[in-house]
Amino acid sequence: MQRKILLFGAGKSASYLIDFFVQQENYLLSMVDPAGEQVLNRYPGNERLQLLEVNINESAQVLEAMKQHDLVISMLPAAMHPLIARYCLQAEKSLFTASYVSEEMRSLDAEAKSKGLLFMNEVGLDPGIDHMSALLLLDTLRKDGAKITGFYSYTGGLIAPESDTNPWHYKFTWNPRNVVLAAQGGLAQLKENGRYRFLSYNQVFRQIKQFDLGDWGRFEGYANRDSLAYRSLYGLEDAETMIRGTLRGEHFCSGWDFLVQLGLTENHTVIHFDQEPGAAEFLESFLPGHGSMQEKIQTYLGDNTTNSLMSQLAQLGLYDNQYRFKRKSGTPAEFLQELLEDKWKLEAHDKDMIVMLHRVNYHLNGKTRTVESRLRVIGHDQTFTAMAQTVGLPLAYAAEAYLNGAYHASGVHVPNDPALYAYILQRLSSDGIVFEEHEISHL
Amino acid sequence: MQRKILLFGAGKSASYLIDFFVQQENYLLSMVDPAGEQVLNRYPGNERLQLLEVNINESAQVLEAMKQHDLVISMLPAAMHPLIARYCLQAEKSLFTASYVSEEMRSLDAEAKSKGLLFMNEVGLDPGIDHMSALLLLDTLRKDGAKITGFYSYTGGLIAPESDTNPWHYKFTWNPRNVVLAAQGGLAQLKENGRYRFLSYNQVFRQIKQFDLGDWGRFEGYANRDSLAYRSLYGLEDAETMIRGTLRGEHFCSGWDFLVQLGLTENHTVIHFDQEPGAAEFLESFLPGHGSMQEKIQTYLGDNTTNSLMSQLAQLGLYDNQYRFKRKSGTPAEFLQELLEDKWKLEAHDKDMIVMLHRVNYHLNGKTRTVESRLRVIGHDQTFTAMAQTVGLPLAYAAEAYLNGAYHASGVHVPNDPALYAYILQRLSSDGIVFEEHEISHL
Repeated sequence: MQRKILLFGAGKSASYLIDFFVQQENYLLSMVDPAGEQVLNRYPGNERLQLLEVNINESAQVLEAMKQHDLVISMLPAAMHPLIARYCLQAEKSLFTASYVSEEMRSLDAEAKSKGLLFMNEVGLDPGIDHMSALLLLDTLRKDGAKITGFYSYTGGLIAPESDTNPWHYKFTWNPRNVVLAAQGGLAQLKENGRYRFLSYNQVFRQIKQFDLGDWGRFEGYANRDSLAYRSLYGLEDAETMIRGTLRGEHFCSGWDFLVQLGLTENHTVIHFDQEPGAAEFLESFLPGHGSMQEKIQTYLGDNTTNSLMSQLAQLGLYDNQYRFKRKSGTPAEFLQELLEDKWKLEAHDKDMIVMLHRVNYHLNGKTRTVESRLRVIGHDQTFTAMAQTVGLPLAYAAEAYLNGAYHASGVHVPNDPALYAYILQRLSSDGIVFEEHEISHL
Repeated sequence: MQRKILLFGAGKSASYLIDFFVQQENYLLSMVDPAGEQVLNRYPGNERLQLLEVNINESAQVLEAMKQHDLVISMLPAAMHPLIARYCLQAEKSLFTASYVSEEMRSLDAEAKSKGLLFMNEVGLDPGIDHMSALLLLDTLRKDGAKITGFYSYTGGLIAPESDTNPWHYKFTWNPRNVVLAAQGGLAQLKENGRYRFLSYNQVFRQIKQFDLGDWGRFEGYANRDSLAYRSLYGLEDAETMIRGTLRGEHFCSGWDFLVQLGLTENHTVIHFDQEPGAAEFLESFLPGHGSMQEKIQTYLGDNTTNSLMSQLAQLGLYDNQYRFKRKSGTPAEFLQELLEDKWKLEAHDKDMIVMLHRVNYHLNGKTRTVESRLRVIGHDQTFTAMAQTVGLPLAYAAEAYLNGAYHASGVHVPNDPALYAYILQRLSSDGIVFEEHEISHL
């Protein structure tokens, strides 16, 4: 029997998901995306992949399209999911997303349940694979009799070593706007050694953890959103430590913190220049002091001046006005994003990389132990990226499990049911997406 | 002929305004304020002062009350003014406020004009007396042929020297919430020596100016909101420097910056403790590091540790848990406000103080000169404060000038018309609210 899937958003992150359904005879995949033409071009003559012209603000069009399909997947920006979910309630279709459950999404739980619909969220990479792999790891430890005392989990969408050519160790493999606005959604909340910890935006990129992952390189992790909210999902209400975070290459955080502290990532205030400014002119308008740019930066930083920061600023062209902005007005974040999209552009031959790391502290047989579980995925090319693979495939496998009856539920969910995550992790391991585990010795 | 005035909000800042109207036979003043009873008690048996029971969310009640009066004054929190202004449009009454013109208020300009109504705003202290005194000063200089090159203006609601008993040199003489959330409304914007400057919340309390005002003491000024927006009001489009700011006592800004940097003023995220925390426990949850509170603070501050900061934190009781919060949950700003209201409470005998300072750089007869104009007002007691006098009297005089025909206009305005500000400044000088001017010598 042919299953019909309606996909909203067929951009960068969707390539593997699309490919998964296209490669199988029993699926028909319809895409709603103004830029979907280029996806069609990858599969010439394939009649099981089609592009629908649907204006998502026209409810009649959306409902008509939904009614002709068995299931909806949305890879649109997270803010659009409540809208799509409301359409799904009307059209009585289940919905799958890789985004965090918002308050608004959560509020639809009862209605979804009453209609027997599943609204499955957080089934991508982070959130997604992180939840599922952590739950499996914690389950296994608990079955052995371990008492979990601490949980750390970090994920990063990074650049493969062979493409790592700048002192930020970063290029955009993901929505640049999300990167520029990262950590602006409120305090990061976590618990460490029994103490609640709240990190303001000023502190997030300063209070970081450093990880030396041997062959994989050196990384830094900054705290991500509200880790405390995930204690119940992981059954870690009593754990002394609970931290979820984002992984970046070495020195990234101190460089980014420089931009944050000066206000270059601020996105509420529209500033105006008399003419389109140069890069140095833009930076200067945020820097106190007098003299040359070098002198201003030295005065501002004092003893905190580092070689890595100096070369990071040079890489962004912030010492001179060679880079000219295309705008005179905008929020600082909009100016910064324009510059970064130029300087952190993924080149044609570049490959991306995903790194995920869990560390779990536990007591077993009177001993204190730590296990580390880690995953690295390197992208194939600019279309078939590690990001698209690790975000899209869990979503695809979740939808598959639901359609073939391997998993059933109704209401608003995240993938915390062993029946679902075991299925998805099993499928991912066949794709080579496998975690390495090892014990870390205690001093 | 008796003039009837409807006043929304009869709190702390309204005492002088109420007294002004009550002392004159030809006014009837009606107050809408749930706590208005205590104001009535100050004027026993006075039939020209009355309290109305009006629910401002019930339009019928509000419109009925407005229709029985000649003019409306609002001393409610600024966020309520658009609501009151819309009622005024319906009831066809003019409105006077001491608050900044919001975008929403500005959008009512055409309708107010078409109905011949005046919506006069920014006619308090800051904004208010600052605009009017600066305009008079600039006008006078320009008439002498001066070319203005720089303008600095700072205002502070402070504590009188005889009541200045803590290392912050500050107590609450004004809405505590506004003090805790100061500078959180977006980047501060200014121009200094020809260069645009944008200050993020992280930078505002660091990039400060110091003022030694001799007998009046030492002060610090931090940049306030968007100074650039006031260039056209002051005719300073071409000036090299344009800065408006807030004045605080010496060392206040570095102490406050410590709280800001750690996130203690954050007002978006609700945090939860297992029990009502003590003051030290609250601070600790924002501090990195290990060891005692002293050690954590030393580690965090490094070389930036100062005696003034240490004594400021001690004054707030942040080194121990003697102070217990009355709440388990709330935003950091809500926790902080609770503590500060306890520690920065105005005592019965305390007097407040207003200090305002303008500095103007100008060229005249081939010379570069600077004139300083400054004002100090010390409060009478806890009811008749300097704040209430300098906020309320300009508002009262503006309403008086409008009612007696000395000033007429329609639409949304600030007091930039010489006919109005000359009138108000003249009335204020009779109250002893007089600026001192002197030339500052250039090196």
